[in-house]
Amino acid sequence: MDDPVTTALTNLLHRLSPNHTGTVADYIPELASVDPNSLGAAMVSLHGDIYHAGDSETEFTIQSVSKPFVYALALSDLGLAAVTRHVGFEPSGEPFNAISLEPDTGRPANPLINAGAIVTTALVAGADRAEKFARIQATLFAFAGRELGVDEAVYASESATGDRNRALAYLTLSQGVLAGPVEEVTDTYFRQCALRVTAIDLAVMAATLANGGVNPVTKRSVIDAEIARITLSVMSTCGMYDASGEWMVQVGLPAKSGVGGGIVSALPGEFGIGVFSPRLDAGGNSVRGKAALHEMSQRFGLHVFTAPTGHRSPIAASDLHDEVLNVQLQGEVDFISAERIVRHLQEMAATYPLSRIDLDLTHVTTVQAAGSELLTATFTDLRSRDIAVRAISPDPSPLLELG
Amino acid sequence: MDDPVTTALTNLLHRLSPNHTGTVADYIPELASVDPNSLGAAMVSLHGDIYHAGDSETEFTIQSVSKPFVYALALSDLGLAAVTRHVGFEPSGEPFNAISLEPDTGRPANPLINAGAIVTTALVAGADRAEKFARIQATLFAFAGRELGVDEAVYASESATGDRNRALAYLTLSQGVLAGPVEEVTDTYFRQCALRVTAIDLAVMAATLANGGVNPVTKRSVIDAEIARITLSVMSTCGMYDASGEWMVQVGLPAKSGVGGGIVSALPGEFGIGVFSPRLDAGGNSVRGKAALHEMSQRFGLHVFTAPTGHRSPIAASDLHDEVLNVQLQGEVDFISAERIVRHLQEMAATYPLSRIDLDLTHVTTVQAAGSELLTATFTDLRSRDIAVRAISPDPSPLLELG
Amino acid sequence: MDDPVTTALTNLLHRLSPNHTGTVADYIPELASVDPNSLGAAMVSLHGDIYHAGDSETEFTIQSVSKPFVYALALSDLGLAAVTRHVGFEPSGEPFNAISLEPDTGRPANPLINAGAIVTTALVAGADRAEKFARIQATLFAFAGRELGVDEAVYASESATGDRNRALAYLTLSQGVLAGPVEEVTDTYFRQCALRVTAIDLAVMAATLANGGVNPVTKRSVIDAEIARITLSVMSTCGMYDASGEWMVQVGLPAKSGVGGGIVSALPGEFGIGVFSPRLDAGGNSVRGKAALHEMSQRFGLHVFTAPTGHRSPIAASDLHDEVLNVQLQGEVDFISAERIVRHLQEMAATYPLSRIDLDLTHVTTVQAAGSELLTATFTDLRSRDIAVRAISPDPSPLLELG
Amino acid sequence: MDDPVTTALTNLLHRLSPNHTGTVADYIPELASVDPNSLGAAMVSLHGDIYHAGDSETEFTIQSVSKPFVYALALSDLGLAAVTRHVGFEPSGEPFNAISLEPDTGRPANPLINAGAIVTTALVAGADRAEKFARIQATLFAFAGRELGVDEAVYASESATGDRNRALAYLTLSQGVLAGPVEEVTDTYFRQCALRVTAIDLAVMAATLANGGVNPVTKRSVIDAEIARITLSVMSTCGMYDASGEWMVQVGLPAKSGVGGGIVSALPGEFGIGVFSPRLDAGGNSVRGKAALHEMSQRFGLHVFTAPTGHRSPIAASDLHDEVLNVQLQGEVDFISAERIVRHLQEMAATYPLSRIDLDLTHVTTVQAAGSELLTATFTDLRSRDIAVRAISPDPSPLLELG
Repeated sequence: MDDPVTTALTNLLHRLSPNHTGTVADYIPELASVDPNSLGAAMVSLHGDIYHAGDSETEFTIQSVSKPFVYALALSDLGLAAVTRHVGFEPSGEPFNAISLEPDTGRPANPLINAGAIVTTALVAGADRAEKFARIQATLFAFAGRELGVDEAVYASESATGDRNRALAYLTLSQGVLAGPVEEVTDTYFRQCALRVTAIDLAVMAATLANGGVNPVTKRSVIDAEIARITLSVMSTCGMYDASGEWMVQVGLPAKSGVGGGIVSALPGEFGIGVFSPRLDAGGNSVRGKAALHEMSQRFGLHVFTAPTGHRSPIAASDLHDEVLNVQLQGEVDFISAERIVRHLQEMAATYPLSRIDLDLTHVTTVQAAGSELLTATFTDLRSRDIAVRAISPDPSPLLELG
Repeated sequence: MDDPVTTALTNLLHRLSPNHTGTVADYIPELASVDPNSLGAAMVSLHGDIYHAGDSETEFTIQSVSKPFVYALALSDLGLAAVTRHVGFEPSGEPFNAISLEPDTGRPANPLINAGAIVTTALVAGADRAEKFARIQATLFAFAGRELGVDEAVYASESATGDRNRALAYLTLSQGVLAGPVEEVTDTYFRQCALRVTAIDLAVMAATLANGGVNPVTKRSVIDAEIARITLSVMSTCGMYDASGEWMVQVGLPAKSGVGGGIVSALPGEFGIGVFSPRLDAGGNSVRGKAALHEMSQRFGLHVFTAPTGHRSPIAASDLHDEVLNVQLQGEVDFISAERIVRHLQEMAATYPLSRIDLDLTHVTTVQAAGSELLTATFTDLRSRDIAVRAISPDPSPLLELG
Repeated sequence: MDDPVTTALTNLLHRLSPNHTGTVADYIPELASVDPNSLGAAMVSLHGDIYHAGDSETEFTIQSVSKPFVYALALSDLGLAAVTRHVGFEPSGEPFNAISLEPDTGRPANPLINAGAIVTTALVAGADRAEKFARIQATLFAFAGRELGVDEAVYASESATGDRNRALAYLTLSQGVLAGPVEEVTDTYFRQCALRVTAIDLAVMAATLANGGVNPVTKRSVIDAEIARITLSVMSTCGMYDASGEWMVQVGLPAKSGVGGGIVSALPGEFGIGVFSPRLDAGGNSVRGKAALHEMSQRFGLHVFTAPTGHRSPIAASDLHDEVLNVQLQGEVDFISAERIVRHLQEMAATYPLSRIDLDLTHVTTVQAAGSELLTATFTDLRSRDIAVRAISPDPSPLLELG
Repeated sequence: MDDPVTTALTNLLHRLSPNHTGTVADYIPELASVDPNSLGAAMVSLHGDIYHAGDSETEFTIQSVSKPFVYALALSDLGLAAVTRHVGFEPSGEPFNAISLEPDTGRPANPLINAGAIVTTALVAGADRAEKFARIQATLFAFAGRELGVDEAVYASESATGDRNRALAYLTLSQGVLAGPVEEVTDTYFRQCALRVTAIDLAVMAATLANGGVNPVTKRSVIDAEIARITLSVMSTCGMYDASGEWMVQVGLPAKSGVGGGIVSALPGEFGIGVFSPRLDAGGNSVRGKAALHEMSQRFGLHVFTAPTGHRSPIAASDLHDEVLNVQLQGEVDFISAERIVRHLQEMAATYPLSRIDLDLTHVTTVQAAGSELLTATFTDLRSRDIAVRAISPDPSPLLELG
């Protein structure tokens, strides 16, 4: 018996299958040798469950999909402030290989265009070229949860023809923002782009970003939650090059594509997605990969700015006996739930004499920072008026600990 | 007794109050006559509760903050496809008054730069200038929940000095993307920018976007949920002009600023925010307005790409008696909760003989599209294997109706 | 009996006649109604002789060919310094209708792109629109040596569709470099462009520039020699828009084209040329007009940077009798002739006792500033050593008066 | 006894001497070690006479002044058509180190910006790097008339810091317009820029261009006249980077500057100039070098578009005896002189019976192509009407051979 996610992925690929528009990248012959009809998709939930369909275990080169993950590594090594002295985070309104250096600082506009990605690769800590690449490889392994090999033929060919990237490297070097010798840095960059991945790998990598930096399959922490958030933010404004704004309107998920035919995308707190289909549109993005994400977003309402269609109250029950108020909460305690809970507690305290409030958190599933902040402030206020407050929970969970 | 939101806003403004950097817009004398030390903030939850502090009832001109709302009106009038023939949605990497017309189509890059906003205003339906402006005014009234007057002195002065905007209008007219006579359109645009609002108004307007187009205070539907989503998407990539990428990294909320000193921002499903402080930075954004949103985002964890720190299971209890499985759910049924529920149901059905499954939705607070889709597919599958499935809910709620 | 210039022009047009590539400007129907096969050319020497062939008396609208002449008028009215505060003189590397405002000053790059031409028209002195246009018309009459009428249909149509030009006018107005109300200025500009000229008119106009501002047919002084020189200089670097560099390489004559199919060109000190053929290339220049000038330049060696193939000495004879040196000069006394003369005089004075030098200027045709400067300095030096110096000329000519 | 040219140069330098504005190029320490107060100038006439003053024999590195001469060499090796496939000739409106590649072809805009100069250097014929540089060095020797050494310290330092130039080289390589390996080409380019010259060398080099490619001192032919013309044309529109238009207006002579402090300039048919003063303005041009050329142009009326202030007739005398017309010509037979001569001959032939015309060329100093063309055509015509025509010249000179 198939699960519905796998069924949905299978059906989606079936519908997209006849679409043969676009052309496989052929600036090097090694890329053109891929089967143009390959089509695979995978989805990994934050519980670590892996769903996949089609050619989801076919290997292809990661190419530009590596950029956000190496950016996350550089942020881990140096922190945002130091990295930002070398590369910005503004959409450039230009194609992937545009020069897009900021006039005043000489920084590449963002880490997801080639110039910015090269500068980012140079920032990765390491005593030499070998150590830097070893750390990049190790980090991408940790994101993917398995070892990834280098496609040596693609690497050699990209290195042999990568003169525009060398030009971008020399430009950033002459602007003082490239932290390393051009040949070393571009060599590392070409190797990084030639790592072999599958759609499943990409989904696990994206799920790691969606899960605050913890790989949901291996449960290993790869990067800090704040860095995962920054990386997703940059993907949301710059991930699809000069079509990033349209992507945000139409799909509404942070994403990054590569000329190998792969796209990663993530819904924070929910899942990661990896798709693979080698035929590209004029902008260098996988035609069916984009279509798959577009349909998934629309069908399942995944757009990050989708407003919820309704909410039941976070207060499941509220009983007052002998100056003791027992309030049973349910669901997610975010800002808006906390606001309603606070209102209720304040109204009750203003209307009736209360000696104690018991908050039953049995059916609460999560407490967000905003909810915690509001409830804690209210508890302090109630206690200052001699009302005891207790949070009752069936299990000790750090996220449900309220002041 | 003050509520904690008001307290938090009050403390925030207190901390920001000594910051006197930036300068009030003075390209027309009428703008420079505002009190530069004004500082106000308001927050409106999707329940319709209004929190505010400081100079939150001081009126100022809406200026560019009007742009996303008029864009939403144009989308309502014509639909996305027709509007997109006239104005794009890509970040331009350029200042508010940049020309930024796309080379091939002649379209302004997006509706939040001046050229795009003028083109958008021209798209609003209406027999003549008066009717168009009446509809814009009525829409902004509906967003704000109260009537908004025009600052006639600001309007007259902007009209007298608005030659660059006339230039942008003539450029778009000559490109065939401006749908109206320049003088009429710019006159309407200058009027629209001169509407008087308060920080509270802005918060209600933003909350309406966050609430899927329904004003949470008046409960009136202003625009469709899809249009609210598109509008927020464009704000997220283009709202802060050439610093939109940094804004997304640092604050992570869709926003739009105006030279009058106002900024709107929204967290979909939660609340809208309006801030007002007239001193602007070099990019034309309110210095303390930006600082206020930055601090709120960091303190309350509001960034849209923040990963949750943990989740209790959506399954509160699961009991099997006489081939009847009773599963008690709790919290939000989104993709990831539904995935866990589906796994549990499939495992139970594979392990034990079942004649019926009762799903108790009493403590479920919301069901998202992705959750509904997965559960419904699973129900169908279970029923095909002669297992009855019932969803039990204490109240009839359309959003909790499952297959 | 035909003169050889007319014969050459006639043969040239005959050779070009079969070339039907290019398309007539049709952005307004009035321009498209011209006979696309029209082909005319005229050449006017600085003696005022007019040579012409083909449709050299067919009227067409002057369009952008008016720009250098109105620039010359603005320079006459205000001087170079004042005009330069409003419009630069740098090639922009961009098409005629590019925006090309300098980032720091807001000035249009040069007076021969539309933005710069509009700013230039606004600088023309005059109490009102009527007076300004009257002065422009009078100046172009003076350049052409006859009255030029306005094509009212073209004027009306350009005015009706001239939104891009209005945009450029508003842009320059908002930058503080347009000296007048947009509607007035653009109206004057559209009228100026709709003046009707013939190839002969253009040749006379160009010859006036080549003749230091004096119309060689009417003998009337139209502008100062310095202004003619500035105007020709700007034509040489900016006259053919984004192909000005290639023009200078291939043709080597200052020129200016218009979408009406006309081109003017001039060889300073020699002649002016006007050609007319309405079919335009992608850059908006007359196809056969360009070809005609190209062939004329190559065939007759007209390129301004052509080095002479040889020179006979400026010293026709030199006789010494009784300490009196009689030197018979010939030809043009420019820098290089003067240098040789000076060398000779100094050597003679160093070698022989001299009491007087008689310089016979009978066969000298012109004395340039550099020549005059060198000879005068030498005369002073010789006189200080008690050698009398006399310049002997058969007729009193100011240009032959030497120290 | 000083000649007046030397005196004029000496006085000019004296006037400019107190001007200490500008700063010496210091992007490498070797350039900053020059004496900033150095000031030299030289002028070489097409007769080969050398005038100089100040630090005219001080050596400095040629830098960008080498560009037009290497361009001339590449044109000699490949011809204009082949070279033009690699580098254009349009002014870019941008600084010397701008990228300025044409969007469609990827060609650098012109050979006088760095990107174009690097591409040009790569086009020089030669089996390897050593041979290419040997040919460049030999060509510059031929232009200067003496051996020029390489400043090894400057070369080493430019090579060590020339990353922006390497970037430009890789960009053009990736566009398919660079004809060689980046390291080889940039190494050759850095060597070429480090050649040591004096102001006198520059004047001889410029005079060679002014003299149609023949070094007027050594009398050796270095390049073809047509290539000299093309080179001067490109210098006239692109030689002073983003101030080339202003230079043409103010000075009116083709020129090229270098960051070493040198400027070359030339007046075709007259002379070459070299100036040297190391302090540069913001555009990278020698402050006093520009001032010197500006003053020389104004004082001596050297602007190429200066109209002559008057001309005596090319017909010195005309006598008719016994059907034989004897016409004594004088001066330069250019278009305009020939036109007058032709008119006179035709009028005489139409009015009187003529059996022969004798044209006395004794006092003719030069015959230009246009003059030759017109006279020859007229002779043919006269002969067809049975009028004999003879050109009488005191000496056999190819340039005076007419029909």
